[in-house]
Amino acid sequence: MAAPDAQSIRSGNRRALAKAITLTESSLSAHRRQAQDLLEELLPHTGNSIRIGISGVPGVGKSTFIESFGQLLLAAGHRVAVLAVDPSSPVAGGSIMGDKTRMEQLSREEHVFIRPTPSGGTLGGVAQKTRETMLLCEAAGYDVIIVETVGVGQSEFQVAGMVDFFMLLMLPGGGDELQGIKKGIVELADALVINKSDGEGEGIAASTQTQYQSAFSLLRNESHWTTVVMRCSALAKTGLDEVWETIQSYVTSTRASGFFDHQRSTQNRQWMQQLVQTLLLQRLQESKAVAAALPKLEAEVEAQHMTPYNAARRVIELLDKG
Amino acid sequence: MAAPDAQSIRSGNRRALAKAITLTESSLSAHRRQAQDLLEELLPHTGNSIRIGISGVPGVGKSTFIESFGQLLLAAGHRVAVLAVDPSSPVAGGSIMGDKTRMEQLSREEHVFIRPTPSGGTLGGVAQKTRETMLLCEAAGYDVIIVETVGVGQSEFQVAGMVDFFMLLMLPGGGDELQGIKKGIVELADALVINKSDGEGEGIAASTQTQYQSAFSLLRNESHWTTVVMRCSALAKTGLDEVWETIQSYVTSTRASGFFDHQRSTQNRQWMQQLVQTLLLQRLQESKAVAAALPKLEAEVEAQHMTPYNAARRVIELLDKG
Repeated sequence: MAAPDAQSIRSGNRRALAKAITLTESSLSAHRRQAQDLLEELLPHTGNSIRIGISGVPGVGKSTFIESFGQLLLAAGHRVAVLAVDPSSPVAGGSIMGDKTRMEQLSREEHVFIRPTPSGGTLGGVAQKTRETMLLCEAAGYDVIIVETVGVGQSEFQVAGMVDFFMLLMLPGGGDELQGIKKGIVELADALVINKSDGEGEGIAASTQTQYQSAFSLLRNESHWTTVVMRCSALAKTGLDEVWETIQSYVTSTRASGFFDHQRSTQNRQWMQQLVQTLLLQRLQESKAVAAALPKLEAEVEAQHMTPYNAARRVIELLDKG
Repeated sequence: MAAPDAQSIRSGNRRALAKAITLTESSLSAHRRQAQDLLEELLPHTGNSIRIGISGVPGVGKSTFIESFGQLLLAAGHRVAVLAVDPSSPVAGGSIMGDKTRMEQLSREEHVFIRPTPSGGTLGGVAQKTRETMLLCEAAGYDVIIVETVGVGQSEFQVAGMVDFFMLLMLPGGGDELQGIKKGIVELADALVINKSDGEGEGIAASTQTQYQSAFSLLRNESHWTTVVMRCSALAKTGLDEVWETIQSYVTSTRASGFFDHQRSTQNRQWMQQLVQTLLLQRLQESKAVAAALPKLEAEVEAQHMTPYNAARRVIELLDKG
């Protein structure tokens, strides 16, 4: 496969963009090298977007939200890319992005680019590919990037670590539906948006909003931004303006304070550090000696026959033997 | 230094225990080996304790709490070890455990062993030493281990990952004093204990308790245990019985469900994995070629002249060159 040239991508050629993304997703090392060369050429033209992460349990209405919210962004003159990060399990709600028909109207728009979760690989690998796809989309002129996750495994943490603004979609009603949301996620959110605030649900949504507002007044602990609790109806298209205004006001205030750029630098440095760790651990996994010994060592540690330190040393010794 | 023998430690010889801990804390590799041999010999005799983590901002009254709570445990016939995990900054509230006079009565008791934070080293190293000290104390017959942290850096996360029950001490009054508590910590707590519920503070403490209870009824999301919100006065020695009853009921119910053992196995496996990563990263730090190139590579990544992937690959290549 010939690599698309940087100029085609920058000029907004959709086929060139799609091809470049396919290259980053390839497991062939030749493709990987081509993709990195291309990315490096495009790097100076990346970053000019607002990166928004959206998470929420299945059934909360993420697709409908993105469908309606995306149209609002288009009407305001933006170009929107929608990416997804989810481990590739078809069982665990994996259908979210697989079929574009769930964002039927949006997917037909000229200034919208929708890309499902890269298939295969570990969550770390999927997140890596999504970060690269985000850069490619920015180089292609998309100025709002939405990264969606259904929150299987640790994917919300990965998404929160690659966006400027992280938003959690919620259902009206307190307590129980939070069961599906993992520890620590609520505290990571820059905004909680209670969806389905329409018809009979509106009253419940309003009281849910009040409850979360008071919970957050207790739990908030960041100086740069106070988590906002809002409600909307993606179906009735109400409250979406407020969501977009909130994001814009976040960007304005954190740009002014320097937090916006600081967060992006930190994310880039952490991304590099994660990759170093990934590459080191990859060696571990590729070592036959380690693979052969690991189950026994772990069992010894669990059975308290060996200290974790001695087991870890043994792993490193085996790695050196190849 | 001659290593103390396992039998002296098991028989409760305090000097032998202290000496063994000093060995684990030593940076000499000969000591490290001796310590590991000793630990391996003692491993079958470890684990027979309840491991309790206690965190809270400076001024919340952790020392007074442990002083009073420790006496309650002694009266119930327990042997108590108090350890601390904090990065070794004398500035950042480091006095907590440095001077034993803050737990004056407790430190004079025969069945109590108090050990301050190991000095020097990174947080990871400090946590590693504390985990080993915990095992040594268990082998010496201490059946309640309290691990205290003031919560500098990421130390609460480390402590939560090495104990059975993690407790957050709080001050009466809502909101603002949470500023000092890091994101995600509140959600990790098995219990929130509002201290200083005495005198004029009692009314505020009671309403703080109600507020947190309602916040947690929204935020709870674990099947094995619902975070309990309690209040006590370490000074007036009220509410401490309830704290101990809660911990015992946690242990009973999670032992019955299998979660208790499952969590310990998971913690052991993760400890080993962390050590493997630590040893791998240690090599990175010891490589002169990497050390020389790293600042420039990080700057290139931050300035968007190089992709994180290419920078990470370069680091690994330099590592191979030594």
